[in-house]
Amino acid sequence: MNKLLVIKIGGNIIDDETRLSSFLRDFAKIKDRKILVHGGGKLATDLSAKLGIAQKLVEGRRITDAETLKIVTMVYAGYINKNVVAGLQANHCNAIGLCGADGDAILAHRINTSLIKNLLEQNIAVVFAPITHDQQGQLLNTNADTIAQELAKGMSKEYDVSLIYSFEKSGVLLDAGDDSTVISKITAGYFQELKAQQKIFAGMIPKLDNAFAALNAGVKKVIIGKAEELNKLVSSQAGTAIVNE
Amino acid sequence: MNKLLVIKIGGNIIDDETRLSSFLRDFAKIKDRKILVHGGGKLATDLSAKLGIAQKLVEGRRITDAETLKIVTMVYAGYINKNVVAGLQANHCNAIGLCGADGDAILAHRINTSLIKNLLEQNIAVVFAPITHDQQGQLLNTNADTIAQELAKGMSKEYDVSLIYSFEKSGVLLDAGDDSTVISKITAGYFQELKAQQKIFAGMIPKLDNAFAALNAGVKKVIIGKAEELNKLVSSQAGTAIVNE
Repeated sequence: MNKLLVIKIGGNIIDDETRLSSFLRDFAKIKDRKILVHGGGKLATDLSAKLGIAQKLVEGRRITDAETLKIVTMVYAGYINKNVVAGLQANHCNAIGLCGADGDAILAHRINTSLIKNLLEQNIAVVFAPITHDQQGQLLNTNADTIAQELAKGMSKEYDVSLIYSFEKSGVLLDAGDDSTVISKITAGYFQELKAQQKIFAGMIPKLDNAFAALNAGVKKVIIGKAEELNKLVSSQAGTAIVNE
Repeated sequence: MNKLLVIKIGGNIIDDETRLSSFLRDFAKIKDRKILVHGGGKLATDLSAKLGIAQKLVEGRRITDAETLKIVTMVYAGYINKNVVAGLQANHCNAIGLCGADGDAILAHRINTSLIKNLLEQNIAVVFAPITHDQQGQLLNTNADTIAQELAKGMSKEYDVSLIYSFEKSGVLLDAGDDSTVISKITAGYFQELKAQQKIFAGMIPKLDNAFAALNAGVKKVIIGKAEELNKLVSSQAGTAIVNE
């Protein structure tokens, strides 16, 4: 099977024009078939504030009401998605920007593998905004980590998939405050050990649970690491590799 | 050659939720391969006003500065484009929303016919937002009539193309104030006659000039008519047909 990279970039890369353009240069260099999933960043929050739309929080979780959905659709699927695509084109990487509604690409846990494969085989990188739909005409704000995971799982029937979560830290850290304490490899057994010893930052646990779920669903490798080191993450020279054995 | 319809909808249909959803139902029913090009409507202007972004006019023409470009990218390529796609999916019409930067689909007068044909042949309707790019990373606000015309011309190498401009009036009118005075057919000779007799509304002349330019570039038929009568426009039972002979 051919290799496919599903790469998620975090919001704080999106927010920083210099880091984003450096990231897009690195992404464009990757020769393998590739999918980029981007989150939202602060722009949607800033725009909501400027328009006086209050953020609704229920038990600490942000609720997407109709007005907020309008904003995130504009910002994620419009501004960010199209600027990422134009930035990749400028780096001679042909790219197409989609949300889950486009070509019915993503519907809950069902991935339209034939549509996405067809684009990838034309040497087009597919750039996903984290907006999906319910097939009844309703758009939905969806977690970008979840989209990346579902894409990686769905496409693993057709490709040898590596799922890369790139963010501001160098990987999974033994000491959350010290970026030099990257764990280079985490197996399922070692993960249980780290959890039992409470050596792992609580916020990282759901990310790792998701990583093992992806591996169990056919994804070959999950890598977590720094966006600035994308090309090293791809060649397994940096970050944390999550593997079953 | 297979038949392809390139259909432009005007901004005032976009602005009206009821008319838009009725239009999308009609569009979904069309069995031929189809491309939809949408304009912007008032939403971008309203959003700019709410955010206090002044419209810059130079000799009466709106100038797209960086802030306005951000707004139109969000509104056209994000909010409108994705809602149109989700609305078509709800009507069991598979659709994909693109701007000119996506897959390098449109670059000035060059249309990426192989990308678009590939999608159409998968029975996917392609929905274009009027945003293009310069291949240097810069997005551009582009007139939707022009996009529809360029698409129709470019695709006429591969398909038997009809270009349909749907808007609020019933077609090209002999009396601009009377919707019952639709001219059913305008040939090049008759157009010269109408212009000489000043029987044609001035705002319609550039639209008709463009229509004849499209015909001369290989488009089979141009139809101008009411969005509410889309299915009749498609079957040549309503609107004005612009033809060379």
